[in-house]
Amino acid sequence: MNVEGEALSLDVAVVGAGSWGTALASVFADNGYRVSLWMRDSKLAEHVNKHHVNKKYLPDVRLSEQIIASADVREVVQGKPVVLLAVPSHAMRTVTRELAPYLDPDVLLIHATKGFEMETLKRMSEVIGEEIPESIASSLVVLSGPSHAEEVILRSPTTVVVASASEQNMLRAQDLLMNNYFRVYTNPDLIGAELAGALKNIIALGAGMSDGLGYGDNAKAALLTRGLAEITRLGVKLGAMPLTFAGLAGIGDLVVTCTSKHSRNWRAGYLLGQGKPLDQVLEQMGMVVEGVRTTNASYALSRREEVSMPITDVLYRILFEGTSPRQGVEELMGRGRTYENEFLGPYLR
Amino acid sequence: MNVEGEALSLDVAVVGAGSWGTALASVFADNGYRVSLWMRDSKLAEHVNKHHVNKKYLPDVRLSEQIIASADVREVVQGKPVVLLAVPSHAMRTVTRELAPYLDPDVLLIHATKGFEMETLKRMSEVIGEEIPESIASSLVVLSGPSHAEEVILRSPTTVVVASASEQNMLRAQDLLMNNYFRVYTNPDLIGAELAGALKNIIALGAGMSDGLGYGDNAKAALLTRGLAEITRLGVKLGAMPLTFAGLAGIGDLVVTCTSKHSRNWRAGYLLGQGKPLDQVLEQMGMVVEGVRTTNASYALSRREEVSMPITDVLYRILFEGTSPRQGVEELMGRGRTYENEFLGPYLR
Repeated sequence: MNVEGEALSLDVAVVGAGSWGTALASVFADNGYRVSLWMRDSKLAEHVNKHHVNKKYLPDVRLSEQIIASADVREVVQGKPVVLLAVPSHAMRTVTRELAPYLDPDVLLIHATKGFEMETLKRMSEVIGEEIPESIASSLVVLSGPSHAEEVILRSPTTVVVASASEQNMLRAQDLLMNNYFRVYTNPDLIGAELAGALKNIIALGAGMSDGLGYGDNAKAALLTRGLAEITRLGVKLGAMPLTFAGLAGIGDLVVTCTSKHSRNWRAGYLLGQGKPLDQVLEQMGMVVEGVRTTNASYALSRREEVSMPITDVLYRILFEGTSPRQGVEELMGRGRTYENEFLGPYLR
Repeated sequence: MNVEGEALSLDVAVVGAGSWGTALASVFADNGYRVSLWMRDSKLAEHVNKHHVNKKYLPDVRLSEQIIASADVREVVQGKPVVLLAVPSHAMRTVTRELAPYLDPDVLLIHATKGFEMETLKRMSEVIGEEIPESIASSLVVLSGPSHAEEVILRSPTTVVVASASEQNMLRAQDLLMNNYFRVYTNPDLIGAELAGALKNIIALGAGMSDGLGYGDNAKAALLTRGLAEITRLGVKLGAMPLTFAGLAGIGDLVVTCTSKHSRNWRAGYLLGQGKPLDQVLEQMGMVVEGVRTTNASYALSRREEVSMPITDVLYRILFEGTSPRQGVEELMGRGRTYENEFLGPYLR
């Protein structure tokens, strides 16, 4: 409730009512704001307003009555000084296009979605930027970090990072969201925060595979660390700063995703490691496994950008070209000798 | 077995036959070297030579017959072109002083010990350097990284880092140790590799405490990431390079230590988080908890170097000044707003 210079009755729009959007709406509500929460399903919106529960995504938690749901994007967004987007990556372009006409020119726009647009390999802020006025796009804020929605909604201690080219908007987003269970750090590296959050799913898949193969803690730590090194390498080529990957959006999120048995990516990797073929794994999971899509995107980006990504390469061949997981690990261990980190250069002086 | 320019019959000395020394002796043996393994207990040495098992530390694994144990430090070290030290941090000065007279002037000296000399707050290579000729000290190699000995001895895939001011010795150590289950990376930042390995135990203690308090994955990831940020901050003040902390000696080792239930530091933290007082915890553990000693050292270093280390501060007060773990976490979450990483500066250009 540490608000500086914003009226407590300020209206905030949250677009997307999956578990993450709903949890962030609750953080805003806890901080004293009225929240308009957009969801496509008007029946579900009615249910939220009547029973104050998101029965589809977070059925066990009672929501604040300051959260008002609606399926009318204009009603939710128009005139709001703060709009937060939390829709799935594949829906980001369509939803942004729908709401763009109603955005206030001075709006503080935040997005909290991890992933790429698969067809174009673009980051979420690139996608959003193509659908809204340049003046809003240039001061967009990204929110990322290690944050299971299921824990945030229970007010369990959580840290996240907000990143933006606009220092003012970054600090404003920090003030709006920060409270005694939700600690918000700032970072000027928007590209890094987005890429780290998107690319980490590959490593989670690999970590699950290592566990599924029956390897130990050493192997998993190796995968995590060397995976981080290679997604950092790609990130830097795409304009990110390496140390962002050592922060909350990188390492922090990676640890949560790789060590939680609730992670879909870890679970899919685990089943692959046990020898199940991909189609069976996907069928058994019954939903999108982001890490599989991200491996595809990352493989394509590594080729386009000519960046060496040995773990991504091996995962790609395991997923799509029939390499066995065990053979993949042997290849990784059998490579030539290497320096640990090419980015140490700048520090050697 | 990828040896370049070294005779396969080369003799290697390993000083210290705890689980880590014994595991590293086995790596050398697997790579075709004869290994002289020093241990203080001559009875245990006899037993090793007769039964090829280290019954005290790794009782379930049969050792190579190329490993010959001895309690005679002169016999083990004299004339050996390669000597690896793997003794506990508190014994490093005494043991180094004992073997110094027998070191070959051209010896490749490697140490694989994590921790500080508590009385002086010195790193292991500083301690060693004070006891041996400058010509050997200046090309010392440090070995660190995420490596449970119990997994290495079973040839489970493992990655480590060797760091040295001497590029030649670093590459030589890499060649001597690398094989198809033990992958060795090089890093010029010896100070960083040593500090990361030593300081990470504090964070493991904190992660255990968070689990013991019943907090979730978000809180643990926060502790890990922000803990990494503060030990990096101290490390840089002491001459380390920040990205070393994002590598195998830092993040890699941190992940192994914070997520393994076998970790003594995690376990001690867990019991403290559950409300047990320190003396009871230490009694229950029945052995040294490195993280407790390291918190002390790190607290003293942060004062001496005037580096802000909020997590270390809180842990120190929990361990030694009666602050309750829950109160400690509340203090951490309630601090003012902060930038994520002060080292991003150099990349902003």
